[in-house]
Amino acid sequence: MTKTRNSVCTLLDIEHPILLAPMAGVSGGALAAAVSTAGGLGLIGGGYAMDDWVMQEVPAAGNTRTGIGFITWRLAQNPALLDRVLAHNPVAVMLSFGDPAPFVPAIRKSGAKIICQVQTVAHARHAAKAGADILVAQGSEAGGHGGSRGLFSLLPAIRDALPDIPVLAAGGLTDNADLQAAAALGASGALIGTRFFASPEALGHPHAKQALIDNGGDDTLRTTVFDVARDLDWPAPYTVRAIRNDFTRKWHGNEASLDAEKADVVAGYTQSVQHGDTRIMGVFAGEGLDRIHSIKPTADIFKSLVSTPVNWAR
Amino acid sequence: MTKTRNSVCTLLDIEHPILLAPMAGVSGGALAAAVSTAGGLGLIGGGYAMDDWVMQEVPAAGNTRTGIGFITWRLAQNPALLDRVLAHNPVAVMLSFGDPAPFVPAIRKSGAKIICQVQTVAHARHAAKAGADILVAQGSEAGGHGGSRGLFSLLPAIRDALPDIPVLAAGGLTDNADLQAAAALGASGALIGTRFFASPEALGHPHAKQALIDNGGDDTLRTTVFDVARDLDWPAPYTVRAIRNDFTRKWHGNEASLDAEKADVVAGYTQSVQHGDTRIMGVFAGEGLDRIHSIKPTADIFKSLVSTPVNWAR
Repeated sequence: MTKTRNSVCTLLDIEHPILLAPMAGVSGGALAAAVSTAGGLGLIGGGYAMDDWVMQEVPAAGNTRTGIGFITWRLAQNPALLDRVLAHNPVAVMLSFGDPAPFVPAIRKSGAKIICQVQTVAHARHAAKAGADILVAQGSEAGGHGGSRGLFSLLPAIRDALPDIPVLAAGGLTDNADLQAAAALGASGALIGTRFFASPEALGHPHAKQALIDNGGDDTLRTTVFDVARDLDWPAPYTVRAIRNDFTRKWHGNEASLDAEKADVVAGYTQSVQHGDTRIMGVFAGEGLDRIHSIKPTADIFKSLVSTPVNWAR
Repeated sequence: MTKTRNSVCTLLDIEHPILLAPMAGVSGGALAAAVSTAGGLGLIGGGYAMDDWVMQEVPAAGNTRTGIGFITWRLAQNPALLDRVLAHNPVAVMLSFGDPAPFVPAIRKSGAKIICQVQTVAHARHAAKAGADILVAQGSEAGGHGGSRGLFSLLPAIRDALPDIPVLAAGGLTDNADLQAAAALGASGALIGTRFFASPEALGHPHAKQALIDNGGDDTLRTTVFDVARDLDWPAPYTVRAIRNDFTRKWHGNEASLDAEKADVVAGYTQSVQHGDTRIMGVFAGEGLDRIHSIKPTADIFKSLVSTPVNWAR
């Protein structure tokens, strides 16, 4: 394998500029450590900034170098957690879905790199101004929360708007050919979620992982119904990409009724999550599902991602 | 320049597997001829299958070899037009948005190649079964009507599902790097719309072309409001990507009121189109707008697209 170290490798001191997406409830310490051990950087899914979960999973990565990602508007409701996490010396902190600016000074001071995930060119400009070391261009193809722009156009638009900041591609990336294409569009690396979800190291109910195998990209949609069902106040314009199921067939497009029946729905939904009932619960997954055919060890997934050298941007 | 002829070049007898998207009201005979002359294949925007427009623009291409594209569900309302067009010996007929099967025998008999544009893997399988010679994977990034899947994931999914049929990439493609990325994902060529709209040879109001320069991809959205304003019965799930303007700010998300006031809206909308009032009229454009900075002759656009050889799939 030829050398692929570029600015992202140098900034984060890693072999391949391939990062684990910090999937809430999925990217625990074990998965993050496995991606880092394979030669990338695992980002723990700090998600909704819940103290207990985060302070359990950060040490679960052991002595392996990892980073962490947060949903920015939720971190703003529990900013003290950031200090507790920074005390563990994460390699990088990724912020998505909100204004990163208030958190930049503390992260910078800790020595961690600042990664900002963005969904539009306007977001990218704001994050650059706030002090991002690395940007992630997240296409609408991504699983979980995201925006509406497609990766294929968003990535080069950000590359051109901010030529001095390395940009990672995110959203549906699954295999080596995807990485080659991302590099052709000017990516300095990639952030990968769903492909790593389909691994034994990922957290998540076995039924959810099985759904990743059983469905393709056509079977996903962007919706807000799972946020209503979880009683989460997500700001516009973000939506969730998840696998279509009985719950989306009943409520997607029917949001007014969902709001009216919310109390009952929330109770039933919580039960479905406990039981891994994928007819009801949201399995968050990207459009790359078409090319995910088995649950594979993280090390094998990573090996296959880098099977042919990628000519990443600087 | 090295040889880039592949199966698409052979099927269509062209130098580069780059096709002009048949944009309704934009891709007239002159633009189609210009793309063909440059080394690709121009597809005239047969669109809504209106006899007068089509039978004016087909001869406007002169003796240059061109093809034509139709909105399938509209062609089904005026199937006689297909025979009139086939009498002019188009190189290829492209069908989008509807069931191509009823039209395949006549096209095949004429000697024209059958190109089917699809928005999902399921569509692709259906089109292959119906007899498509070439598929177009149209990502949600595309201007005008389209679906919801992102090109970056849709293209390799179709490539894997139907390895024996060449697939063109479509949706927001603008420059040579985009073609390199599409090829990395397994494309055998590309179908390009918006970039050619920003040319002197394209039809369309000068104000509309100026809007292509003044706006970026962040400024576009997918919506149904322009179809209501044009009194067109578009079937679900297709939506239009257009540039946001006063009209979308008023009506997008407010479709029930729009339906209620439809009669007035349609009259006002028609006027806006006559006057080139881009505050009201829909300027259909893809997410590649970020990288379109000037109106350029078609020949120059084409030259720049093929400035570096592309390693297209077979």
